Amino acid sequence: MDNKIDNIGKVEPTSAEFANELVLESGKKLRNITMVYETYGELNEDKSNAILVCHALSGNHHAAGYHEDENERLGWWDGLIGPDKAIDTNKYFVVSPNNLGGCHGTTGPTSINPETNEIYGPDFPIITVSDWVNCQALLADFLDIEIWHSVIGGSLGGMQALWWSIAYPNRIKKAGVIASAPKLSAQNIAFNEVARQAIITDPDFQEGYYLKAGSAPKQGLRLARMVGHITYLSDEAMKKKFGRELKEDKLNFGFGAEFEVESYLRYQGDIFSESFDANTYLLMTKLLDYFDPADEFSGNLVDAFKSIKAQVLVVSFTSDWRFSPERSKEISNALIEANKNVSCLEINSSHGHDSFLFPEKRYVNAIKAFLGNSE
Amino acid sequence: MDNKIDNIGKVEPTSAEFANELVLESGKKLRNITMVYETYGELNEDKSNAILVCHALSGNHHAAGYHEDENERLGWWDGLIGPDKAIDTNKYFVVSPNNLGGCHGTTGPTSINPETNEIYGPDFPIITVSDWVNCQALLADFLDIEIWHSVIGGSLGGMQALWWSIAYPNRIKKAGVIASAPKLSAQNIAFNEVARQAIITDPDFQEGYYLKAGSAPKQGLRLARMVGHITYLSDEAMKKKFGRELKEDKLNFGFGAEFEVESYLRYQGDIFSESFDANTYLLMTKLLDYFDPADEFSGNLVDAFKSIKAQVLVVSFTSDWRFSPERSKEISNALIEANKNVSCLEINSSHGHDSFLFPEKRYVNAIKAFLGNSE
Repeated sequence: MDNKIDNIGKVEPTSAEFANELVLESGKKLRNITMVYETYGELNEDKSNAILVCHALSGNHHAAGYHEDENERLGWWDGLIGPDKAIDTNKYFVVSPNNLGGCHGTTGPTSINPETNEIYGPDFPIITVSDWVNCQALLADFLDIEIWHSVIGGSLGGMQALWWSIAYPNRIKKAGVIASAPKLSAQNIAFNEVARQAIITDPDFQEGYYLKAGSAPKQGLRLARMVGHITYLSDEAMKKKFGRELKEDKLNFGFGAEFEVESYLRYQGDIFSESFDANTYLLMTKLLDYFDPADEFSGNLVDAFKSIKAQVLVVSFTSDWRFSPERSKEISNALIEANKNVSCLEINSSHGHDSFLFPEKRYVNAIKAFLGNSE
Repeated sequence: MDNKIDNIGKVEPTSAEFANELVLESGKKLRNITMVYETYGELNEDKSNAILVCHALSGNHHAAGYHEDENERLGWWDGLIGPDKAIDTNKYFVVSPNNLGGCHGTTGPTSINPETNEIYGPDFPIITVSDWVNCQALLADFLDIEIWHSVIGGSLGGMQALWWSIAYPNRIKKAGVIASAPKLSAQNIAFNEVARQAIITDPDFQEGYYLKAGSAPKQGLRLARMVGHITYLSDEAMKKKFGRELKEDKLNFGFGAEFEVESYLRYQGDIFSESFDANTYLLMTKLLDYFDPADEFSGNLVDAFKSIKAQVLVVSFTSDWRFSPERSKEISNALIEANKNVSCLEINSSHGHDSFLFPEKRYVNAIKAFLGNSE
């Protein structure tokens, strides 16, 4: 893609302050919440064209365009959001917040706790997808958006779209649930647990009070990201990308990065550990583990979906082994059984879980059609 | 299984010293090698019933029976080795060594370097599957076994069996290559790299000289083992074993181990980090990464297999995603194309990569038949 041609251009984050107290699922309360967000496109007069875009585990509000320089890395969903793209900013008003507990401006572990005037750190309460959605509802109120035309996201973002449909059936017309799952598997939880243990057992973690101590558990966060990265890519994608290619011509019988995949992972881990907050990462993995809308319905997903009024699009990708197409089928089958308006689509893609980030043609067309059609 | 009934009983490790220098693939040399091993069953008069059992990544020589107490944990392949078992100790003389670089008695990073009279630590040379097999050949010479009836192993053990067939075609009659692969995929290497980085970036690693410093990178080794464990089990096996079961009745909104799978992984990691040497773990992951018999044949596995005379049995397991049945097919297809005597079998099993440890009936029968038949 040529940055200069098809992206939305320069964008600027803005923020909202919510004076009201937010009661969390844990029973704890947060007040003076700041929520950072970006918007793309224009809100129409009857406010019927607003789309909420929900980020995944390590995402933030910067979903499209660039901040300063047109050559910088574009927003995480730039492939799908922009003029004439899958989420067409000529037609829709796109809202992309940094979620509660985040580390890019929205109130989170790196913010000041108004009760103590100290950085929250590990004292920031554990939050859930429901808390995220409730906080996004405050943002909708703030923006005077009564009903979202759509709520859409991939992975953990899809879980938010699903929860919007369940919890606010009258405030959402369409839900895009992409590369997602109705709850994590034991294996998914296991990978998250390794990531958490990597962070927590890093001596620089300081029981979470690392900012106070002037340190940061960078090695732990780096490892967490490395593990995560393996689960985002398919074996096939890794084969295509790296094969068993060596950085140099021959084996060097040492522990430096020898295979291309090793230096790639180290690089990704290094970058991430410099730019992300460890406590936020812990919170977000926990939020994934806890997501289970069927839980209060004795595990019955069909019952959990009873309240849904939105039209739902469920998209999965063949090479995704983190949230495989089987997991999407669990969602769409339960929606069908609950007599909901659901369409589902499995896309051939070799990018693994990351596939939801790439504007594959059939995928783009499906989203366009889904957003554009009327019931 | 009832320990008291069907295991081989009390066993005792013994050891061999090799005076000759061993020239490694890296060009480095090792001398005064001690190799610890166990044997089960009796060697017959014409020495034609000896089976070499090869351990995998974190294994050792203790493959069957118990050392002191009949209630202790049995050897790692006790399900398959013993009287009337798949590898029948009434018929065969089974030899199970701890491989070079190990940490259970065989010369390795925790041994004294005769050149310096100090512990090798990180100065122990990088070794390869070929080095392991050459060292096992010294053991065969020591035991006066000219020709192995069979060499057999799972995972990395299968790679050794395969390499025996290639490198010593006249010293092996049958090779059992179980749950193995002709070389690691980029994803396999990536998981190994995370494990290595976990160890190397642990501050207690001390650049590998932790024994000298009186420390050990236990947190790193613990994380490495946790990651490994996830790849040994299938998603299905984890679901069966743990599901999303909570340790207590409800979520506690904290970072303690909440799901059963979390405490299982922590426990496995803790035990392992107390009993295994980190430098050995590093060596063994590298040895896996380096294995690629086709490499010196321009990537052509058929050519790599040209020298093989042994009858080969290739076994894979449906739920194994570390070394999937597809990887076994690469081996058997190349053997077929090279006109070798090969039989292959895919076993339905839900235990993931660990399946090779469990005496599933069809698997046991196949090994029995394979070992018992004559060409």
